[in-house]
Amino acid sequence: MLPSLAVSLIERDGYAWAFLAALGAILLVSVPQVILIKPEDRTMYTRDGMAIAGISWVCMSVMGCLPLVFAGICGFADAFFEIASGFTTTGASVLSNMESLPRSIAFLRSFTHWVGGMGVLVLTTAVLPGASGGGSLARAESSGPSFSKLMPKVGDSSKMLYFIYTALTALLFLALLLCGMDGFDSLLHAMSTAGTGGFSNKSLSIGYYDSVSVDIVISVFMLMFGVCFVVYFKLISRDVKGAFKSQELWAYLGVSVLCTVLIAANISSIYGGFAGGLRYSFFQVSSIVSTTGFSTADFDLWPAFSKALLLLLMLMGSCAGSTAGGLKMIRVILLVKLAGREVTRAFKPRSVKVIKLDGKSVPEDMLGHIAVFFFVYALIIVAGMISLALSGCDLLESISGSVACISNIGPAFGRFGPMGGFGFLPPVTKIILALIMLAGRLELYPLLILFFPSAWRKN
Amino acid sequence: MLPSLAVSLIERDGYAWAFLAALGAILLVSVPQVILIKPEDRTMYTRDGMAIAGISWVCMSVMGCLPLVFAGICGFADAFFEIASGFTTTGASVLSNMESLPRSIAFLRSFTHWVGGMGVLVLTTAVLPGASGGGSLARAESSGPSFSKLMPKVGDSSKMLYFIYTALTALLFLALLLCGMDGFDSLLHAMSTAGTGGFSNKSLSIGYYDSVSVDIVISVFMLMFGVCFVVYFKLISRDVKGAFKSQELWAYLGVSVLCTVLIAANISSIYGGFAGGLRYSFFQVSSIVSTTGFSTADFDLWPAFSKALLLLLMLMGSCAGSTAGGLKMIRVILLVKLAGREVTRAFKPRSVKVIKLDGKSVPEDMLGHIAVFFFVYALIIVAGMISLALSGCDLLESISGSVACISNIGPAFGRFGPMGGFGFLPPVTKIILALIMLAGRLELYPLLILFFPSAWRKN
Repeated sequence: MLPSLAVSLIERDGYAWAFLAALGAILLVSVPQVILIKPEDRTMYTRDGMAIAGISWVCMSVMGCLPLVFAGICGFADAFFEIASGFTTTGASVLSNMESLPRSIAFLRSFTHWVGGMGVLVLTTAVLPGASGGGSLARAESSGPSFSKLMPKVGDSSKMLYFIYTALTALLFLALLLCGMDGFDSLLHAMSTAGTGGFSNKSLSIGYYDSVSVDIVISVFMLMFGVCFVVYFKLISRDVKGAFKSQELWAYLGVSVLCTVLIAANISSIYGGFAGGLRYSFFQVSSIVSTTGFSTADFDLWPAFSKALLLLLMLMGSCAGSTAGGLKMIRVILLVKLAGREVTRAFKPRSVKVIKLDGKSVPEDMLGHIAVFFFVYALIIVAGMISLALSGCDLLESISGSVACISNIGPAFGRFGPMGGFGFLPPVTKIILALIMLAGRLELYPLLILFFPSAWRKN
Repeated sequence: MLPSLAVSLIERDGYAWAFLAALGAILLVSVPQVILIKPEDRTMYTRDGMAIAGISWVCMSVMGCLPLVFAGICGFADAFFEIASGFTTTGASVLSNMESLPRSIAFLRSFTHWVGGMGVLVLTTAVLPGASGGGSLARAESSGPSFSKLMPKVGDSSKMLYFIYTALTALLFLALLLCGMDGFDSLLHAMSTAGTGGFSNKSLSIGYYDSVSVDIVISVFMLMFGVCFVVYFKLISRDVKGAFKSQELWAYLGVSVLCTVLIAANISSIYGGFAGGLRYSFFQVSSIVSTTGFSTADFDLWPAFSKALLLLLMLMGSCAGSTAGGLKMIRVILLVKLAGREVTRAFKPRSVKVIKLDGKSVPEDMLGHIAVFFFVYALIIVAGMISLALSGCDLLESISGSVACISNIGPAFGRFGPMGGFGFLPPVTKIILALIMLAGRLELYPLLILFFPSAWRKN
């Protein structure tokens, strides 16, 4: 609230009271709890870590959306959707005509992206490193192949992560200024890019600037924020060889380049040749694979082949240990290897092949967890699809809208396309989608357990 | 060829020579191989069983399509698609105006369904029961939870299966006659229903008859052919309690009833009330869940919620050990149980919960195989989707068309809807889709290994 309050006061947009009121409401509810509730047992188990992750992200979204409600921008369901979309770095919006938003509210939206991205990246390995249960919380928010194994000294490395994240954001801010974007817009887009979120204060998103240099700068940075931060960590530690050894990194870049070229060829006739196609294709592929969701063109009008590739990129997402969402490239690699082994087993039933990644063998139980993760991911997409189909969406909107939420992308197809939004949905659907975004952001389980009665029971 | 030849001669449609020519061509190619090629080693390994399953289904489709080519009905790619669609009991068609087809060709199409259904059901446990390798062939065509475990005496039980399959087909034939359908149409639709195929000799499919009694009879029989045949086997053996103990059966019936009611409510306004909705909904749900693909209405025009449910039913399919395709209900049940266990593990990391089905615990490695199977299934859907998107289909057509092929349904949405067909696709796409149908029909691996060079290498 405080940075947004500061922006409101500096810009004199007259909404300072909304942030003050929100701050007051939050303190009124939370301070007595902190004072009055004294836990008898401070031991933290995995369940507690998971529940803290799930509940606190929901609470963050509820509290964060209060200024929008107080300022009369929209009702609670809309505000909750918008801010959950912010913190989860999704970037799906229920608002239209971004140019008419108060500047402090526009700032808040992008700021939630930046905080959310940092949250995913750092909080998980840093907030509770000393406290007991910190480990389990870290596990909760990155139940996939994770960070913590690579950087055993969580305290030290978290500081380094803060530094890298902030430095890259600052670098992007400066680059955007150099491209001629004004200070306020540069700050907002730098924060939205860093969190791979996608909120813009322009209705046309990055397309508003219609600048090749802005397109390229943001494309490159979107891709960079989708890279596992361990790579940067190793680069700073001068372990260049180690940094570039990651199979995930090369798969991520390879898929991005391949899709950029294929889509560029597919849309070249729309943009007067391959070069024109390449500009829009590079931007859109970077935006979708990094799960940011900015746009420079209405990709909903592109041919089905390009849209099919974008849908697959939405599902895949970027590298684990980045600010991006989606299944994560590392899971996709391991799933493809698992699939290959399964077919091989069909004709070599006695072969026992260990699956390796970066030269190290991956434990069988982790492979099993990843295969089930994929199914659970699909189940949630189905839940979102059904909710959307019941809310008057056509089938493609329902499928792609659900994928765009769980993978924290933002725009999808049809009325959810880059020129559309989620505003027309009924309130209950907005709340369901917000929960799906949160589930996607927290790698599913920390949010899902909240719906399991047995998770709430005392042992 | 022989039954179709007989039909041609009886009906005097003038295409007897096409079947004779096809028969000649088949004998010309295959007889010398049987005579000249003497294998040195007759031992059969799993790989051989798998390869036999994969190659023979491809060859069956290539040989079976010759009459269509010779008769000048369509080109090779179209004919291969049509007959692969027949043998795999998919029922997707490249032909239009069914009423203009020669009667022997119409017969051939439905006959391939009947043979294909029997193939899936019986050949796997019966063709090579005595020969070495029979077991591995059985495994090849039903790598999921299978039959053979339930009926150890393969020879005896296969005769019983032949009997049940033929008896149910005959019963349906008689029921259709009683509903006033003529003899030829009754025979064709009885065979197409038994194989859960979906080819009709009417362009409007079952909708042509516009008869409530025909609708109900076919709906009930479609559902019956989607039931695991072990259930009938047990009923005949007077093990009524055992027959109805199957969790899969109840899940299958439960899902069917639930979807029928939900869709009926959703489409009631189109058909003048809930009762009218129920008629079309019951037929279409039975048709899709059993992966038959008949239609009495253009469900492509139904609301998105109904279409979303139909898409899910397409993916699920019916019971293992039936003539139906799809993922199979038993896999869906186990996947959902796996998902539930995985979420539970997130808050009870030390709990070791065994997953049970019908009171028996399911081995962990089978669960792993099923989870990977789901991913491989999804990968093939993606391959089909990309092929279709490259062939000028929109994204929803691409997704649903691919699902309809791998799950052996037939109709999908858009131009692949019940009033459309696959005829407009380029030849290469038709061949890809035919291979996807075959992959789906053979539970993926026997066909997939044909594309793995290492499977062709000598040990």
